[in-house]
Amino acid sequence: MTDHIRAAVVGSTGYGGVELIRLLLTHPKVTITSVISSSNAGEPLTAGYPHLQQALPVETLDGVDPAIIREKADVVFAATPSGVSGKLVPQLLEHEGLRVIDLSGDFRLKDRAAYETWYKHEAPPQASLEQAVYGLTEIYADQVRGAAFVSNPGCYPTATTLGLIPAVEAGAIDRGSIIVDAKSGVSGAGRGLNIGWHYAEMNENFKAYKVNKHQHIPEVEMVLGERAGEPVTVTFTTHLVPMTRGILCTMYASVADDRFLSEDAWIEMYRSYYKDKKFVRIRDKGQWPATKEVWGSNYCDIGFSVDPRTRRVTIISVIDNLVKGASGQAIQNLNVMMGWEEDLGLRLAPVYP
Amino acid sequence: MTDHIRAAVVGSTGYGGVELIRLLLTHPKVTITSVISSSNAGEPLTAGYPHLQQALPVETLDGVDPAIIREKADVVFAATPSGVSGKLVPQLLEHEGLRVIDLSGDFRLKDRAAYETWYKHEAPPQASLEQAVYGLTEIYADQVRGAAFVSNPGCYPTATTLGLIPAVEAGAIDRGSIIVDAKSGVSGAGRGLNIGWHYAEMNENFKAYKVNKHQHIPEVEMVLGERAGEPVTVTFTTHLVPMTRGILCTMYASVADDRFLSEDAWIEMYRSYYKDKKFVRIRDKGQWPATKEVWGSNYCDIGFSVDPRTRRVTIISVIDNLVKGASGQAIQNLNVMMGWEEDLGLRLAPVYP
Amino acid sequence: MTDHIRAAVVGSTGYGGVELIRLLLTHPKVTITSVISSSNAGEPLTAGYPHLQQALPVETLDGVDPAIIREKADVVFAATPSGVSGKLVPQLLEHEGLRVIDLSGDFRLKDRAAYETWYKHEAPPQASLEQAVYGLTEIYADQVRGAAFVSNPGCYPTATTLGLIPAVEAGAIDRGSIIVDAKSGVSGAGRGLNIGWHYAEMNENFKAYKVNKHQHIPEVEMVLGERAGEPVTVTFTTHLVPMTRGILCTMYASVADDRFLSEDAWIEMYRSYYKDKKFVRIRDKGQWPATKEVWGSNYCDIGFSVDPRTRRVTIISVIDNLVKGASGQAIQNLNVMMGWEEDLGLRLAPVYP
Amino acid sequence: MTDHIRAAVVGSTGYGGVELIRLLLTHPKVTITSVISSSNAGEPLTAGYPHLQQALPVETLDGVDPAIIREKADVVFAATPSGVSGKLVPQLLEHEGLRVIDLSGDFRLKDRAAYETWYKHEAPPQASLEQAVYGLTEIYADQVRGAAFVSNPGCYPTATTLGLIPAVEAGAIDRGSIIVDAKSGVSGAGRGLNIGWHYAEMNENFKAYKVNKHQHIPEVEMVLGERAGEPVTVTFTTHLVPMTRGILCTMYASVADDRFLSEDAWIEMYRSYYKDKKFVRIRDKGQWPATKEVWGSNYCDIGFSVDPRTRRVTIISVIDNLVKGASGQAIQNLNVMMGWEEDLGLRLAPVYP
Repeated sequence: MTDHIRAAVVGSTGYGGVELIRLLLTHPKVTITSVISSSNAGEPLTAGYPHLQQALPVETLDGVDPAIIREKADVVFAATPSGVSGKLVPQLLEHEGLRVIDLSGDFRLKDRAAYETWYKHEAPPQASLEQAVYGLTEIYADQVRGAAFVSNPGCYPTATTLGLIPAVEAGAIDRGSIIVDAKSGVSGAGRGLNIGWHYAEMNENFKAYKVNKHQHIPEVEMVLGERAGEPVTVTFTTHLVPMTRGILCTMYASVADDRFLSEDAWIEMYRSYYKDKKFVRIRDKGQWPATKEVWGSNYCDIGFSVDPRTRRVTIISVIDNLVKGASGQAIQNLNVMMGWEEDLGLRLAPVYP
Repeated sequence: MTDHIRAAVVGSTGYGGVELIRLLLTHPKVTITSVISSSNAGEPLTAGYPHLQQALPVETLDGVDPAIIREKADVVFAATPSGVSGKLVPQLLEHEGLRVIDLSGDFRLKDRAAYETWYKHEAPPQASLEQAVYGLTEIYADQVRGAAFVSNPGCYPTATTLGLIPAVEAGAIDRGSIIVDAKSGVSGAGRGLNIGWHYAEMNENFKAYKVNKHQHIPEVEMVLGERAGEPVTVTFTTHLVPMTRGILCTMYASVADDRFLSEDAWIEMYRSYYKDKKFVRIRDKGQWPATKEVWGSNYCDIGFSVDPRTRRVTIISVIDNLVKGASGQAIQNLNVMMGWEEDLGLRLAPVYP
Repeated sequence: MTDHIRAAVVGSTGYGGVELIRLLLTHPKVTITSVISSSNAGEPLTAGYPHLQQALPVETLDGVDPAIIREKADVVFAATPSGVSGKLVPQLLEHEGLRVIDLSGDFRLKDRAAYETWYKHEAPPQASLEQAVYGLTEIYADQVRGAAFVSNPGCYPTATTLGLIPAVEAGAIDRGSIIVDAKSGVSGAGRGLNIGWHYAEMNENFKAYKVNKHQHIPEVEMVLGERAGEPVTVTFTTHLVPMTRGILCTMYASVADDRFLSEDAWIEMYRSYYKDKKFVRIRDKGQWPATKEVWGSNYCDIGFSVDPRTRRVTIISVIDNLVKGASGQAIQNLNVMMGWEEDLGLRLAPVYP
Repeated sequence: MTDHIRAAVVGSTGYGGVELIRLLLTHPKVTITSVISSSNAGEPLTAGYPHLQQALPVETLDGVDPAIIREKADVVFAATPSGVSGKLVPQLLEHEGLRVIDLSGDFRLKDRAAYETWYKHEAPPQASLEQAVYGLTEIYADQVRGAAFVSNPGCYPTATTLGLIPAVEAGAIDRGSIIVDAKSGVSGAGRGLNIGWHYAEMNENFKAYKVNKHQHIPEVEMVLGERAGEPVTVTFTTHLVPMTRGILCTMYASVADDRFLSEDAWIEMYRSYYKDKKFVRIRDKGQWPATKEVWGSNYCDIGFSVDPRTRRVTIISVIDNLVKGASGQAIQNLNVMMGWEEDLGLRLAPVYP
């Protein structure tokens, strides 16, 4: 077991990158040795992020050079946009001993055709796709352990699949009946400029977007299908909430088994399923989690309601999209890859209020 | 046709009341002659609402006295809490010639037992319930015309039923498959103090509440059932959005008829259904309405997505909960009751941004 | 007195333009006959502003052609950016009988050198500058009456000068001691994209900008100096508040005269000064106005605190930056130009909450 | 030097208390052994704060019993309201070896009469006042070191005095000219219910409150006067910003010395003054700090503007009111009291965005 490693963050000027930096700064076994940006190399990181002044051992942004990254770091987090990671990661993987955790969507779908349909550009090479371990840590820790390359899940898929997997595996719901109504804070859209994310347009506003077209849909179906042992198709709607962080998924399904017509049964099933998982908290009966209750932390909280009138269950899950939905889970994966305690550097209470 | 009437607003210190005042102030055929509050009688309205300074012809709050109300006014808006209206309105109706528009939920459900189940207190007398015309104006204008007593719909039911009625009537969807995922701004909860609506708790927060238990559920089912000619049961979840005004309902149902597997078919069906309705706007293909696009106005905007993979339609409707969802629709009902143009005093563009 | 006029709005796709449209739609003596945009001519206005669907008699954006504008309209509102108005307005003024109200900053400063120092581009021609009447309506109504060309004040100068003029004229404060601490909602920055106004950056954030450098400073000093009869220099700081609309100015000055060491004296002085002004409301003792109390309306509310310990007065004024600070005041100016009642189309209560 | 201590938090159900818990949970030398609430003793802390589920070693709230506190803890944080601390702390201090850090305002003012004037209730006993060391850590570390009882500064005074002390000590400004325009997020008002902090009232709103009357004014004047060696009187206005956390103070003063007419001189003076202070960051020329840039962290960032036209300096300082303005500084004081590194448990980057 290695005691201390050096980390590089590619895409340090995006929200995923800067959140990785915040979290890694308090990780007891990691030192950030390189912050990397293709577009701002040579500039101080604090030019775009004055909040990091004096907080960081390295200050100047490096360019993207796999050989230099390998020299400076033992693990690299690729917090790069979809399309960019697909090209960069194969080059990084050529450098022996360099561990890679990719936060883009490029290596999640194993099916290149599906990738190209949903992401609208060319998929990464098949060889790299096969190397990638899908890092939904609670479910795939065995594969992550010792892996050299982990593909970190998307924010919506994390909240959705953690909320549905126990039910899907148990056959508690009709797999054809799943509807996911997902809501996210604006930071999920990244730091790029867009009139839709302009303050005066988004404040006092709630809206749907990419209805039935979000690129996270096939990822959700892939994971649920894999756990179910048969194809699962979902209806999936994404909405933007006037807040910065947080995802709440309200998930509906028809109860397939009379044993699951009470909330107690759901709570028991999920508490049992996640009993050793530190970051999944099953809420008490009659309590549904709010996004602020996980804000800034790596938790995923889940609550239930069962309506005997309609025989449907309503499952509500929340995460912080930038932590459990991105950078926190990436660190959780690093911990498992390294054989460390899963929650090292992540024992953070949510920030409240 | 009367040319000008005098209006009293009971419950002037709540959000529904103060919004009625804002809207009535620009109505060309109405003068506010009494603002009424049981708890603050004798005080100036501006004590709690300094924004109304100099804006209003009457300044001092009157107490609740039906005889005096009748003397001062031709129509009374009861923007009183549920439970209070149930007692007050029967007394008001004893005064001949006084028209009443009630904004509470007390006279919406015709079934007293259902009322008591969902509202948890005693239902109003049967006689008053029978007098009440349910004022979902686009649908029930014929009954509203000339009525003396209108029960104004709830905010969630307005957005929901306007979004579902054409489909339910046309048999375009499987009536047992309806799921409504509703989101509301915080003003819907009223001006009462509650830690859950405290700024520091609600800001940067999104949460579900009253899951499967909201008192608007039976109202939605009553209206949809009445239009369908058979009972309709829905799954209905309510959420609070960190914003002041606005409701967005995302509604899911299985398409029952192959003709409705395209968005064009939905747009055509709804445009035809609402063709003379000034306040319902059906959005173009690929456009889903956002709450800010109806903010401060009496519009209800509706958009569609059809997913051929799952054969489900997603219908999205938005309103301003305090206007079309309460005070604006109350004035729309007044206009129809009086035989005036339906949009008198309501030709307001949404406030944007 | 003309009974009805036709209006064109240039810059219809900016926030000032779209707010003009909202307000003009309910003006009883104005019809919008042309909405104009240089960059989006030929497109429907609703492409960028779906909230205006069905609300407007004209739908397609016209290009900027002064001759056609003259044909279609009797008055033109130029809600164009600074620099653009300076070139366009002189061309518009060549068309006889066309009244022009300019909302940019281009014609406010009479001193071309000052303009070029603060605005960093060339000033408009001297002749047009001389034609422009500065439209701070409460103060300069006599000049506005019958004018052909009005330059509408800036948002910060409106809130600031209405809050200071009575004191400056009365000699109640030391004119060298004025400090203005101004705070504005984000809509004041317009619809242009900028990372600083991105939702995730601005939400839960409060910041200063352009400290001592805002281009509205010389405008404030010009007006105060003109009323004082001697040069006035101010310290002026601008801040961005995480909200869409609203300006609050906290203004400090040393009391120059013992008669003004009580709040009563200030209230009396201001109520007397503004006694016939419908849009200025002087608040009662111990009450300071909040931005929400004028939201969506043309009011400017003012309150006071006098500290006998420091012999300083604190004056607080609020406006809606898009109404009294821009489009509302432009319509107020139109009313005065036309000899109509000053508040025609502007008898709007603030939207609350 | 003690290696590890046990901490009790009184007032665990307020925002200051819950923030202490969040921060102490990652402190390497502290274990929380008791969470205390007078009103909710016996209940689980998570009843009011479900976000803390599973995060905390102790779960049930203890009542307020000094003897038991002494048994369970080595240090007690009193995050109790003003008035309550004044009575509780003297009892705690009777227990030998128990260190006390008080976050209320009760022990800040040494002058009992001043306390009673501003706080409107009886001051604590003189003896306890004399024991209290005022814990503005950057300035009074020498007194804090080894102290048994520290009175933690108020949020506004922390931001204000850190921003003014170097100038006051250097004689760079006219001490009679100081004006502080302070803005705070709503969490500063605490968790108590009040219509003014209700979401629908505070959202899209900016307002002043307690103008010239805030109880933090004498605290600011006490500290500045002590550093100046002569009385200092300030004009001080407090405002509420529609955000949860953050304070920004804009401070104005006349420059008293020509050497300080450039921003470079100010930056140099402050960098030199705070050169060993890890939590004070002086910003580069032309950069003013925003509240989000210190959000969730213990930093105080300071920037400057000098206007040669008016010979005034504008100093802008920001803190997170719940961290450096309350709980973070309390822990900083604990570290200094214990002889530990000042930033132990506080090496936190701001949360961004």
